[in-house]
Amino acid sequence: MELKFMNLALKYALEAYEMDEVPVGAVIVKDGIIISYAFNKKECNKSVLEHAELIAIRKAEKKISNWRLDGCDIYITLDPCPMCASAIKQARISNVYSALQNSDIVNTKVINQIFSADKINPKVNFYTNICPIESKNILTSFFKMKR
Amino acid sequence: MELKFMNLALKYALEAYEMDEVPVGAVIVKDGIIISYAFNKKECNKSVLEHAELIAIRKAEKKISNWRLDGCDIYITLDPCPMCASAIKQARISNVYSALQNSDIVNTKVINQIFSADKINPKVNFYTNICPIESKNILTSFFKMKR
Repeated sequence: MELKFMNLALKYALEAYEMDEVPVGAVIVKDGIIISYAFNKKECNKSVLEHAELIAIRKAEKKISNWRLDGCDIYITLDPCPMCASAIKQARISNVYSALQNSDIVNTKVINQIFSADKINPKVNFYTNICPIESKNILTSFFKMKR
Repeated sequence: MELKFMNLALKYALEAYEMDEVPVGAVIVKDGIIISYAFNKKECNKSVLEHAELIAIRKAEKKISNWRLDGCDIYITLDPCPMCASAIKQARISNVYSALQNSDIVNTKVINQIFSADKINPKVNFYTNICPIESKNILTSFFKMKR
């Protein structure tokens, strides 16, 4: 885990904030090199598939011309939803570093089940609450502004 | 549930088969009208996000210019993976009709948790094993051919 990549993910979360999107950012890294980055564009692009993680995965797959992202790590500013967790798993990303744990315990339970090894894909290592204060500040400020 | 839409989804599964993709098809319907359809293109498009369900959702969102697919039903030829189940839930699709139950009981458990109501999205009605023989024949024949 390198904090500089998490700081970059937080920077992209702020870009989402500026576009009036729920502020979540993602950065995919392999061997210390940034492969792709993204921020949430759900409202702007009118698609539930435009979460930061999915956009970053799509860009990484395109960059390396392969859906297998073995050996890659993903840095995200909030725990993934089950859709993104399962995409990360199926893309065979090795490590997930999340800045902030989701307060929804059902989400935590489901994504932990998804990250476990199954018949097809290996286990994903999941580390959460890496720097909760920074990410929570951005999210809290966003939802306060929306109300 | 209208069997003609499931038969169409099975027809798209066969199109995937012909392209050497795991044969799964999906059709999204609203008020008896087909909104979108797709088949799995994971290998061809080198992306884990190219499952039939996600492509169909993306096309439907584009068609109606909205990520909210309230009142839509999706017909699929095999139970969804957690990624697709969560996308279906977040897109607020009302009913999921699956031709064939996944033999992986962990998958069944996780997707049932996802389809339950949560703080943000309503419950998704999930009906499986609608016409298992037809879908199983296509999948069995595909994996036999691959070996």
